[in-house]
Amino acid sequence: MTNIDLQRERQAALISSEDFAEWWAGGRDALQERRALDKLFNEDDDFTDPQHTSLMSHKELYEYTLAKACKFISKLRDWHAAETQQSAIASLYDFRMLLAGQLGTALFQQSFPLRLHFSMFLPTLLGQGTEEQQREWFERAWRMDGIIGTYAQTELGHGTFLRGLETRADYDMKSEEFILNTPSLSAYKWWPGGLGQTANVAIVMAQLYIKGKHYGLHPFLVRIRNAQTHLPEPGVDVGEIGPKLGLNGVNNGFLGLKDVRIPRKQMLMKNAEVRPNGRFVKGPEPLLTYGTMVFARVMIVRDVSFGLLQAATIATRYSAVRRQSPIAVDQPEPQILDHTTQQAKLFPQIAKGIFFRIAADVVWLMYQSVAKELGAGQRRNLPELHALSCCLKAYCSAEAEEAVEILRKSCGGHGYLRSSNFPQIYGAVTAACTYEGENTVLLLQTARFLVKQYVDGLKRKVLPSSVTYLRNATPPKWGKSVELKTLVRLLEYAATESIRSAFEYQKKQRKIFKSEPMVTNKAGIRLIQSATLHARAFLARNASEEAEKLRRQLKPALAEVLVQLTEIFILDLCLASLGNILLSFPLNSRQVEQLKTRFERLLEEFRVNAVTVVDGFDFSDRVLGSTLGCYDGHVYERLLAEACQSPLNEEPVNQTFQTHLKPLMQGKL
Amino acid sequence: MTNIDLQRERQAALISSEDFAEWWAGGRDALQERRALDKLFNEDDDFTDPQHTSLMSHKELYEYTLAKACKFISKLRDWHAAETQQSAIASLYDFRMLLAGQLGTALFQQSFPLRLHFSMFLPTLLGQGTEEQQREWFERAWRMDGIIGTYAQTELGHGTFLRGLETRADYDMKSEEFILNTPSLSAYKWWPGGLGQTANVAIVMAQLYIKGKHYGLHPFLVRIRNAQTHLPEPGVDVGEIGPKLGLNGVNNGFLGLKDVRIPRKQMLMKNAEVRPNGRFVKGPEPLLTYGTMVFARVMIVRDVSFGLLQAATIATRYSAVRRQSPIAVDQPEPQILDHTTQQAKLFPQIAKGIFFRIAADVVWLMYQSVAKELGAGQRRNLPELHALSCCLKAYCSAEAEEAVEILRKSCGGHGYLRSSNFPQIYGAVTAACTYEGENTVLLLQTARFLVKQYVDGLKRKVLPSSVTYLRNATPPKWGKSVELKTLVRLLEYAATESIRSAFEYQKKQRKIFKSEPMVTNKAGIRLIQSATLHARAFLARNASEEAEKLRRQLKPALAEVLVQLTEIFILDLCLASLGNILLSFPLNSRQVEQLKTRFERLLEEFRVNAVTVVDGFDFSDRVLGSTLGCYDGHVYERLLAEACQSPLNEEPVNQTFQTHLKPLMQGKL
Repeated sequence: MTNIDLQRERQAALISSEDFAEWWAGGRDALQERRALDKLFNEDDDFTDPQHTSLMSHKELYEYTLAKACKFISKLRDWHAAETQQSAIASLYDFRMLLAGQLGTALFQQSFPLRLHFSMFLPTLLGQGTEEQQREWFERAWRMDGIIGTYAQTELGHGTFLRGLETRADYDMKSEEFILNTPSLSAYKWWPGGLGQTANVAIVMAQLYIKGKHYGLHPFLVRIRNAQTHLPEPGVDVGEIGPKLGLNGVNNGFLGLKDVRIPRKQMLMKNAEVRPNGRFVKGPEPLLTYGTMVFARVMIVRDVSFGLLQAATIATRYSAVRRQSPIAVDQPEPQILDHTTQQAKLFPQIAKGIFFRIAADVVWLMYQSVAKELGAGQRRNLPELHALSCCLKAYCSAEAEEAVEILRKSCGGHGYLRSSNFPQIYGAVTAACTYEGENTVLLLQTARFLVKQYVDGLKRKVLPSSVTYLRNATPPKWGKSVELKTLVRLLEYAATESIRSAFEYQKKQRKIFKSEPMVTNKAGIRLIQSATLHARAFLARNASEEAEKLRRQLKPALAEVLVQLTEIFILDLCLASLGNILLSFPLNSRQVEQLKTRFERLLEEFRVNAVTVVDGFDFSDRVLGSTLGCYDGHVYERLLAEACQSPLNEEPVNQTFQTHLKPLMQGKL
Repeated sequence: MTNIDLQRERQAALISSEDFAEWWAGGRDALQERRALDKLFNEDDDFTDPQHTSLMSHKELYEYTLAKACKFISKLRDWHAAETQQSAIASLYDFRMLLAGQLGTALFQQSFPLRLHFSMFLPTLLGQGTEEQQREWFERAWRMDGIIGTYAQTELGHGTFLRGLETRADYDMKSEEFILNTPSLSAYKWWPGGLGQTANVAIVMAQLYIKGKHYGLHPFLVRIRNAQTHLPEPGVDVGEIGPKLGLNGVNNGFLGLKDVRIPRKQMLMKNAEVRPNGRFVKGPEPLLTYGTMVFARVMIVRDVSFGLLQAATIATRYSAVRRQSPIAVDQPEPQILDHTTQQAKLFPQIAKGIFFRIAADVVWLMYQSVAKELGAGQRRNLPELHALSCCLKAYCSAEAEEAVEILRKSCGGHGYLRSSNFPQIYGAVTAACTYEGENTVLLLQTARFLVKQYVDGLKRKVLPSSVTYLRNATPPKWGKSVELKTLVRLLEYAATESIRSAFEYQKKQRKIFKSEPMVTNKAGIRLIQSATLHARAFLARNASEEAEKLRRQLKPALAEVLVQLTEIFILDLCLASLGNILLSFPLNSRQVEQLKTRFERLLEEFRVNAVTVVDGFDFSDRVLGSTLGCYDGHVYERLLAEACQSPLNEEPVNQTFQTHLKPLMQGKL
């Protein structure tokens, strides 16, 4: 029997969670398809965790995850082969989506030692291998026939700045081989997923040297473990980098190479070639590589949105079950969901999760269109796409991270327990702030684009659509009621002002410093703020456009709830940017009061549908993996049952009683 | 040999870290005393961790921590007995300070299964036991003679709202005993530190019933484990609540009681008595209990400040060692400490850690004076102290939590490794947002006080010193240069405006809702903001007053650096409150520009002393426990060495290769 409070919530809702789920999944068919796939794994006992993974030791967790991952790949391949007749290449893209999407999250919380094989190794073979290399490697690698791959770029001492990488590949003309070396401690490859104990082949990014002359960074296929024995190959020093804040199933590894020789044809040569005689031939600019980075960043926005919504589901259900602190005198303790402060913690996060994913969808469409253009050698729209994917990845991961923690703490002490699953979700989401481009670096890249566009705007040039607002000098119009389009304009106006101010500051700095990078460095704080405000303005416009569509397409009740969420989302953005808004457009305190009151009003209105909306995200209990967030709301039963599983509770008296506590009590220690 | 970059930093500094350390410790003598004590443990091999604690399993970590804790208590007692001739009662307060202070942090990162014995069990015996009860229990408990105590209040389903607790104690007149029961699942005691496998006696807070009539919540001494065998006593269901985000050495436990009988005299009866015949006699109001809560909150501000400064030390040293992303063209990668964006991440956190502790010191003095007054039955200054300790605990813990994460992420991926120690520091600091009063609840309590004071101010009553600014209607004066006192006034003005607006909003709500708690509920978001702004205003004023003193007392170079930090601290507060400041006092964009430029200038100026200042916090490598933060800066060596300790690296090939990877590669899975 479901908890009575949750039952009441579901009965009182004005919309059906099924309607919401259908919209969220992208239609009836998409929902059914996803559910069929979920079912395939959910009803297979092989995929039931024998205990909460938080109870496993570091080594046990790896072994358990690896075993599950192998079964998962095997089962998914069988299903995929039966369902579709696609080529390996087409299938790869499905696979990547599945791994990055809800299914991957479902089973592995993004923590998956074979993920890089599909997300980086195979795509790099495709993107940077010649046709001949693809023939030789791709099909085999797709079948995992003796090949489990990873992608090794980052080094112990070097990250973002690629020219700083130290690993080198010297071409030996006599043997027609490359000799790979890790010249120093800081050159150790460090972080690649699956590199620790899992992969046996790595694409190693290394500085190419021919006759001692440097030819830049290139990818090399290096066998690191023997296909038969899995023992490290001679000259290979490989291992795992140890426990982390989260994602401990990923098996991140380190790699040192000492005079490791590989045949010439194991440099991936689509974009640059080393001929047998040592001649270096550069190919066309590898535009598609940029595309791959954009893809990865859009996927991250989706990932963190899923993580955030899982956390929101857990916290919302728990807030309906938990009762605390009377509101009315002489009444029993209310559901904490009735506290305004609790609503302010939960509902904006639900809205963020939704509109982050919707923004990712839009950028995903842009990516597909730009990828086609790149294939045809056109790069006109690449800078805009690049700037947008950078700032959305950075903004959404940082916001999602913060949101998960707000949601965790909204559950009081119980959220601190690993059995709530918040700590693991946080571990996965916060990692996204650092990988695939550290957030500060990405925001600076976007800001550079924005300042350039701002200058183009001053020159009355036509600007790409996501930044046309930079040319729109019309101040927001304040009507009687607060309209969404006014709020969007407020954010755009604030972003424009911030970009203008960063531009002016850079001009001043240019008088002091000659070096342009130094000017950028000095303006860093302002540039980051500009890119952040741009992300907010983009997200707000995107959400308000979505709301317009929904009003036309959906049943009125559902549309109304989604419009409420849109407004909550945009008002929350405005209130978070209040300082910048007031600097660019002097709202008076009555107007700000209007915003606040409207925000509070919306929290109150959304309250009745909160549980139904999070039900509609359609996360199964197995996905949520949380004592606090299960569909039936049996929170306290699960907390106690989970606690009883703790290895410390296996014996009535721990051994330290005899060895330490007793001597201490007897004054004999 | 120390890393060359760190050497250069130390040589270039304009102050000596020893001077800073002396000031920070509170003088030469205090510094030497602390170092002597540190040395006692630092040079004892018994206190060297055999491996990084992040490599231990949940059970191993408990066993290791418990053993270390027993040795620690034993050694500290010997030392203490030799050093001082204090009574047990006086010694207790020293002990609590040591456990809560740098030494406790040093050895246990606040994660200590015997801590509650000293921090809650013994003080409650003193505060709530009669003299007779103290004679019977206190000395024995102090010696731990058969007694290891804990304090059990919070229940699975009940936290803040004490009247909601369900555990009951029924008085049985015939046998002159209390019968303790856990009437439901949600009444299980849940969270007490040391309750899992460590304590054998608990002070259990339970609802007292005599002949079926309810007499409120009272403390009962209950033996939960046999002193000889450590087995749970009959009717006692006790265990550990499982792995958590952090503080896994604390051994938090659960406790269910079924018809557990204790003699009448095991109810602590200083404040209320049950006579043998069942007559209930209430004593005077237990004012001192409030004092205990205040004490705990002040200690938390100190704890989180230490955690924050450890994180800042690690991140600052790492930022001097790490080189990345060229600033000047054709130059090698600079220390990341040279990036303005990195400075903006680090330096405000250093300032926060310092001024949080200084605020805690001030409130600590207030506490001591109020505690004296309470002893004499005067409660006049209690409300102010209570309000201040609530909002400082809430504000500083929330800020410290955020700061630790900013610092962790400022170290890129490496901060995500447990060997960096950031995750463990975060676990300890974020817990403080929830325990000893959940932050939202505490801010609402402060806000209630503030609104009341605001109303008193309108009536021209004299206000307590921390809120006199509420009566000061003079707007801040903007001079040519930005002065500290102007910034403080800006924050006070913004706080006043926010409190005024919350008060007005409550008036409006009162017209709609009759119930006062409902009015408070509706105004929740605004009340929390008011209390937050009050905390900022208080911290700013306190810091600026400290700066004045330092200018007079210290060597000019040291004073200058501390004044820089004061300015960074207060400007950071202002920029974080910009929306509220602009709402109350219309700065123009030139003035805001002045604030920003000054802030950036200060970051630049402080840069040269950054490493020396964090050195001056005098955390030993053992305290920091971090691969990234050691004094010698051998970051990469330690990262690799620590990784090699990972249990996954013990065997060249993990067993899952044979069981899963190989079959997968052969298509046989």
